[in-house]
Amino acid sequence: MTTTERQAQPAEGYRVVGTRPVRPDGTDKVTGRASYGADIRLPGMLFGRVKRSPHAHARIVRIDASKALALDGVRAVVTAADFPDPGDAVVPTIRGPIPKQWQLDHIIAGRKVLFRGHPVAAICATDPHVAEDALALIDVEYELLPAVTSAREARLPGAPLIHDDGLAARVPGLLQVVDGKPTNTSRRTEMRVGDITAGFAEADVVIEREFETAMTHQGYIEPHAGTALWNQDGRLTVWTSTQGAFGVRQSVADLLGLAVAKVRVVPMEIGGGFGGKLITYLEPLAALLSRKSGRPVQITMSRTEVFEASGPTSATQSRVRIGVKRDGKIVAAEAHLVYESGAYPGAPVPGGARCAFGPYDIPHQYVEGFEVIVNKPKVAAYRAPGAPQSEFAVECVLDELADTLGLDPMELRMRNAAREGTRRPDGAVHGVIGNVEVMQAMVSSPHYQSELVPSPDPVKRRGRGVAMGFWQNGGGESSAYANVHADGTVSLILGSVDIGGQRASCAMQFAQTLGIAYEDVNPIVTDTDSIGFTGNTGGSRTTFATGWAVHEAALDIRRQLEQRAALIWEVERADVAFSEDGIVRGPDGRQMTFREIAAELPRTGGMVQGRVDIVPTSAGGVVGPAFAGHIVDLEVDTLTGKVEVLRYTAVQDVGTAVHPSYVEGQIQGGVAQGVGMALNEEYIYSDDGVMANASFLDYRMPVANDLPMIDCVLVEVPNPGHPYGVRGVGEVPIVPPLAATANALTAALGVRVSQLPASPAVILELISALDD
Amino acid sequence: MTTTERQAQPAEGYRVVGTRPVRPDGTDKVTGRASYGADIRLPGMLFGRVKRSPHAHARIVRIDASKALALDGVRAVVTAADFPDPGDAVVPTIRGPIPKQWQLDHIIAGRKVLFRGHPVAAICATDPHVAEDALALIDVEYELLPAVTSAREARLPGAPLIHDDGLAARVPGLLQVVDGKPTNTSRRTEMRVGDITAGFAEADVVIEREFETAMTHQGYIEPHAGTALWNQDGRLTVWTSTQGAFGVRQSVADLLGLAVAKVRVVPMEIGGGFGGKLITYLEPLAALLSRKSGRPVQITMSRTEVFEASGPTSATQSRVRIGVKRDGKIVAAEAHLVYESGAYPGAPVPGGARCAFGPYDIPHQYVEGFEVIVNKPKVAAYRAPGAPQSEFAVECVLDELADTLGLDPMELRMRNAAREGTRRPDGAVHGVIGNVEVMQAMVSSPHYQSELVPSPDPVKRRGRGVAMGFWQNGGGESSAYANVHADGTVSLILGSVDIGGQRASCAMQFAQTLGIAYEDVNPIVTDTDSIGFTGNTGGSRTTFATGWAVHEAALDIRRQLEQRAALIWEVERADVAFSEDGIVRGPDGRQMTFREIAAELPRTGGMVQGRVDIVPTSAGGVVGPAFAGHIVDLEVDTLTGKVEVLRYTAVQDVGTAVHPSYVEGQIQGGVAQGVGMALNEEYIYSDDGVMANASFLDYRMPVANDLPMIDCVLVEVPNPGHPYGVRGVGEVPIVPPLAATANALTAALGVRVSQLPASPAVILELISALDD
Repeated sequence: MTTTERQAQPAEGYRVVGTRPVRPDGTDKVTGRASYGADIRLPGMLFGRVKRSPHAHARIVRIDASKALALDGVRAVVTAADFPDPGDAVVPTIRGPIPKQWQLDHIIAGRKVLFRGHPVAAICATDPHVAEDALALIDVEYELLPAVTSAREARLPGAPLIHDDGLAARVPGLLQVVDGKPTNTSRRTEMRVGDITAGFAEADVVIEREFETAMTHQGYIEPHAGTALWNQDGRLTVWTSTQGAFGVRQSVADLLGLAVAKVRVVPMEIGGGFGGKLITYLEPLAALLSRKSGRPVQITMSRTEVFEASGPTSATQSRVRIGVKRDGKIVAAEAHLVYESGAYPGAPVPGGARCAFGPYDIPHQYVEGFEVIVNKPKVAAYRAPGAPQSEFAVECVLDELADTLGLDPMELRMRNAAREGTRRPDGAVHGVIGNVEVMQAMVSSPHYQSELVPSPDPVKRRGRGVAMGFWQNGGGESSAYANVHADGTVSLILGSVDIGGQRASCAMQFAQTLGIAYEDVNPIVTDTDSIGFTGNTGGSRTTFATGWAVHEAALDIRRQLEQRAALIWEVERADVAFSEDGIVRGPDGRQMTFREIAAELPRTGGMVQGRVDIVPTSAGGVVGPAFAGHIVDLEVDTLTGKVEVLRYTAVQDVGTAVHPSYVEGQIQGGVAQGVGMALNEEYIYSDDGVMANASFLDYRMPVANDLPMIDCVLVEVPNPGHPYGVRGVGEVPIVPPLAATANALTAALGVRVSQLPASPAVILELISALDD
Repeated sequence: MTTTERQAQPAEGYRVVGTRPVRPDGTDKVTGRASYGADIRLPGMLFGRVKRSPHAHARIVRIDASKALALDGVRAVVTAADFPDPGDAVVPTIRGPIPKQWQLDHIIAGRKVLFRGHPVAAICATDPHVAEDALALIDVEYELLPAVTSAREARLPGAPLIHDDGLAARVPGLLQVVDGKPTNTSRRTEMRVGDITAGFAEADVVIEREFETAMTHQGYIEPHAGTALWNQDGRLTVWTSTQGAFGVRQSVADLLGLAVAKVRVVPMEIGGGFGGKLITYLEPLAALLSRKSGRPVQITMSRTEVFEASGPTSATQSRVRIGVKRDGKIVAAEAHLVYESGAYPGAPVPGGARCAFGPYDIPHQYVEGFEVIVNKPKVAAYRAPGAPQSEFAVECVLDELADTLGLDPMELRMRNAAREGTRRPDGAVHGVIGNVEVMQAMVSSPHYQSELVPSPDPVKRRGRGVAMGFWQNGGGESSAYANVHADGTVSLILGSVDIGGQRASCAMQFAQTLGIAYEDVNPIVTDTDSIGFTGNTGGSRTTFATGWAVHEAALDIRRQLEQRAALIWEVERADVAFSEDGIVRGPDGRQMTFREIAAELPRTGGMVQGRVDIVPTSAGGVVGPAFAGHIVDLEVDTLTGKVEVLRYTAVQDVGTAVHPSYVEGQIQGGVAQGVGMALNEEYIYSDDGVMANASFLDYRMPVANDLPMIDCVLVEVPNPGHPYGVRGVGEVPIVPPLAATANALTAALGVRVSQLPASPAVILELISALDD
């Protein structure tokens, strides 16, 4: 059943979960009242701007801000020298330890600039235009160094060494060492299952191919914006557009040498993140400018700054080799992944490695990957980080294998489908997953069952492609706090920033457990002081983990209401039970609805609150992985190279779809971004490391009229490791579009598309090579 | 020990309680960064003004706002007709039930105006000056009615009936009925102990006197300010300067017919309240203007509006009769109290009645009181509401009795002191109280032991006076929520507005229970959605009740940390105990400090939170009453009538002084206000009900150079009904100054001062009568 057909009915066995209620933030967003990062206004607020390097690689000889400081209206200038010296410290990050100095360097360069747009100073003034003018008055003398703008160049022997400060030596493995000298290649990832040599020895057919993808940006609508007030009492308050207020708190505290208790981070509404707003760029600069000026300071990025100096995803090169038996059974698979990190280590190679063969049960696997430092912005997370690129390569080779074996591409995939018990190369073993169900739903879908009719126009060629996608999803820590009001409504306080419906999905799970209406729950996202610790909104963890937290908070309330009812009825506590229908029942037919007992609370001892801080995987929970399968029909104009997507069907195991409309929105958004990566999006660099298309005019993202309606098929295989069967749904939909599109293009053109984006220029080159 | 001598040492047996740490809000307040009611700024915010009646009593014939609405920049006008019809509803208030219509009428008059300044319309515009101009363009036609501006007039037979709408008939006893007709006299209060007739029969000496006090205002620095945003999704947010966000939420929801869950009230910092900011004036008007205009609307009062249309305290007339035996034993006491309510019922007669004889153990007591409706603003609570006036009368009569019996005035009081077991006229029996200790401290104080030296200037006469004061204090419901951070600091979220140090006093009790430093607690006052229900900050309840709540929240955290430590150490839960020294101990010498276990939390199951909602008196708590005794020396200039306060000592049983500096501040502030009531402050009305002195230039409040340093003596008799022995301390200090000052004046002049304020005009009149 496609979800467009699906009724607004609750999921089986539930009353609220599975329905499609109005979103709590809807009115504010459509009326323009929602306050995003740059909407905060404080008395006396100054406007900050960042002075950025025009060069991709250079030594900073001298920074002279005296002329800028002399400009009327300018209140303060900050450079790297204003920050506490990180000394020899090595700090943990999600991608492993790095020198703390590099963390600071990334925010503001002191010794060298490593990418065009790298901050070297920040300034604040009473007016944004004055601040802008002042930037030009900051003199920075550079000694230019050769820029290295691709992994290929960076790995050449004799390539200029980007991190030449010697700090890498403190972290074993951080930079690969060749002939005793550090290189631009950073951490190595290796994963294996079985014996890869033995595996290939068993194979009847082996295909090995190479693939490339470009650096692309998440393309969130809202540029980064950070505002800071460093109060005279030493307390720092930060307002920002972020996916994780607690993460910003930690990084700001770390860089500024403050106790976390001195830092309060207030997350504003977020205009898109997709992983790119897990990183702190502006807030430490705004904080120091505030301390120097004694005033609140707001810094926002322009779109060009977002492109040049926030965190896009890696350009990649992959080599994949897969061996099959005649019957289509895959016996061995290996992948070599090279991902660009940008200026500092951190390319999402582990994600790429873990997921490459995720949808398949392959006895012998080997994955090796490298991160490579280049003179480009440091990459950040971007929706299922690393997975779209590696799975693109694998899914293309599988299509070629199916073709070689004369098998339907889905038939080959179904014969090798991962299922419960399949071992993953990261050592995990799959629990209950919906991979097979997704494949079956794809094959039986009206789309797959339909015939692809050729274009009546002879210059247009059509093709159909399929691809699978896997993403492991995340868990982590979440808190919840809830207040019952006497009218039977409840405020639900959350620390999870809402980037894609988490207020709704949490309110629904809470209402379900408490036996009340969704409309009676008022979910609120608050600041880091006003709620217990809550991890970032990322890794598709929030509806899973914060959903679990609100469920526990509701149970906490239920227990208290049982106690209260026992008190009111003067019966034994053990004889009272609160059920999920929202009714508390006691002996001899006594009962009260939630609303009735709420009304009794004020005069029977006061209101009640629920609270919880939970790490679901420490509480018996299991993160449920996600599987997706996409089918795309497209048409290539062989004269212009333009590609039109004709039909797109996205099938996904979404566990229990808590709010199906939001799930569909996540799927459709992921497909749009994946198709953008497949067809048009890329950072275009000049040789000296200047991005040539740092605007939405020149960086071509798909917009609504570039895409057909994306049909979603929600396959619901509940995650038994969650009270409501929740699996993260937000990341995996970006995985299959690259390969599905490439496979469809290959079908249309009769030639393997192995380099993305398959922009008109690439398409025309392929066609011209064919014609030769 | 006077507190100026007292060291910054903790109270006995405590580590934090009793010290004098820096206040959490101090920096923001001295640097001007604290945001008060009118400091909130919202995008597109409109400025509202209230059109008020120039007449004290009139029928509204017609309101025509068409010209105002036509003014460029005016966006909306609201009149009573825009509010939901209250119909026949009768609603509860703290002073008993009243017709809901009257509640609405008080906010905005529809049929009649009942006092000068009574709102008849509200308007909003893009600019405050336009709004001001627009007020004059609202045509209101009135039919004038005779104004009744004193209780004396109002009670005369044939006085114009103020509440002639017939609604009072729905609430028995709301208006006294004479000859079948309602009058301007509203509710009657009666309290008794023993048999008053028998009591007076035993007396050797009986004195009966009459007293008067004037209507006075709390005089908070910050005028009322309310801002409202009625969102298109039906949710209303209100920002306001208030003593109780939950109270504002309730009254706004009631008047506008909204569910409380639809209303979120955000309390701003408050620039003084003293009881006068428990009432909602502007917020419902701002809310409706916001709904009509679709924009946020802010309304502020001018100082004149504050005087004319907020809630001062009652002018009163009292008659007190006390009978004593020759040995000074009081055998009978009765009081007749007449308090003006202003335009609607609600004078604090019950407070006056309950407290009149509070410091004394008198076997036969009788108190009768009436509230009287007059054409003045409706009175509101003002610090120990009703008590200063009735106790003034009693303490004056006691002085005269002592004089008659030839007893030292303190000797008479000590012979009759209320103590544990004394029966109160409200039916309660005193528990552990510090009344006797206060009297002893007064007598042994350097002040009382000193001789009052006559003035060398013959036109100046000096006198010394003493008086006692009693206030019962309050309890009620409070919530607390606390988050432990990994660095061992804790955020403490409160619903109690901080009007006099409650952030500090709660953080201290919390730190004490949790065994951590005060500086490691970050107390935050939040909005009505983000914390459990919490009653108003008033009735000296907050350090008692919210203090209890934070203590329980700390215990909740301690229990969780014990569980966690057991988990970490892999020992039995029962073998682990968290002590108040902040150390959790297990078997075999295992131990961790709070900071150490906090650091372990992230990797052992997540952080912990504490939460509680408590009504202390339902949890075994007892509200501890407060007793105060003041000594004042003053000097009267017999030529000008000006009075100078030479020396003032305020002794008070403060239970455990949680933060002695704040306690002293409360005492000193109360004395200043009480002296103002005694010497200068009064509403001066013309015959037609227009206040003649509605500005701080003409309404004479004591300022710093009008008063000497007020010496405080903190007597600490801990309240056994509270975990930290807390008694409310904020209200009782306003009680004794009226009588102490009057008694000193009487001593100086040789004539009984029975009418307050004893302004120069009154003094000169007394002197001139003496000379006659």
